[in-house]
Amino acid sequence: MKLTRFTDNALRCLIYLGQNPGRVVTVGEVSRRMLMSEDHLLKVVRRLVELGLVRTVRGRRGGVQLLRSAEDIVIADVVRATEDNLAIVPCFSPGDNCPLSPTCELAGAFEKALAAFFGVLEKQTLADLLKPELSRG
Amino acid sequence: MKLTRFTDNALRCLIYLGQNPGRVVTVGEVSRRMLMSEDHLLKVVRRLVELGLVRTVRGRRGGVQLLRSAEDIVIADVVRATEDNLAIVPCFSPGDNCPLSPTCELAGAFEKALAAFFGVLEKQTLADLLKPELSRG
Repeated sequence: MKLTRFTDNALRCLIYLGQNPGRVVTVGEVSRRMLMSEDHLLKVVRRLVELGLVRTVRGRRGGVQLLRSAEDIVIADVVRATEDNLAIVPCFSPGDNCPLSPTCELAGAFEKALAAFFGVLEKQTLADLLKPELSRG
Repeated sequence: MKLTRFTDNALRCLIYLGQNPGRVVTVGEVSRRMLMSEDHLLKVVRRLVELGLVRTVRGRRGGVQLLRSAEDIVIADVVRATEDNLAIVPCFSPGDNCPLSPTCELAGAFEKALAAFFGVLEKQTLADLLKPELSRG
């Protein structure tokens, strides 16, 4: 049970940008510092742009920058928007054909557990993930 | 983000046995009814035997049976014992080399979220996953 690499990298990209507030950071820098391939990072950045969380700046001094303040970026929202599959058990999926489904509360139990998981992340913003001594930037 | 097939099948095997209390069920029956390969199911059953949750009975009328009452089987324990990797983010793993680690609270946030997830499953027993009308057996 783990997050996809995509979600993990999206979070780490946001954290790196949050640690460098106001600065336009090149994709090359994030890629080098976060040990991510540039190709993968570009896909991540594209998704973060779609979500309205970062903006890209073109040109020689171009790069990526947070578009919202770290306090306004809720971690639960990022995870929900970047995880491609939150069907933690197959019976969450509409097409699942488990014969137990009509007589089983497995899905209900895991729905509650997942709600509790996201309940914690609803209360966490990007600002909470930046350690105070460095988030002052 | 999803459970491994192994954990899902372990839970579904337990549910099927819980729906058939007192009865020794053949591996073939569980495999057919739960649409699992017999090979995979045998691995699952071996683990459930190790965990003291089921016992196997040899011979012509042999098969598998719950060793404890459904009320005594806590879902969180089953998930913890069958998931091979609970490092929901890579920075949970001791060998992780993310350069952010010293200045980042990502692991802390997900530790809390995972604790909330398991907190729900601590309160769920196998008996809770069996719908009342069928668990009377």
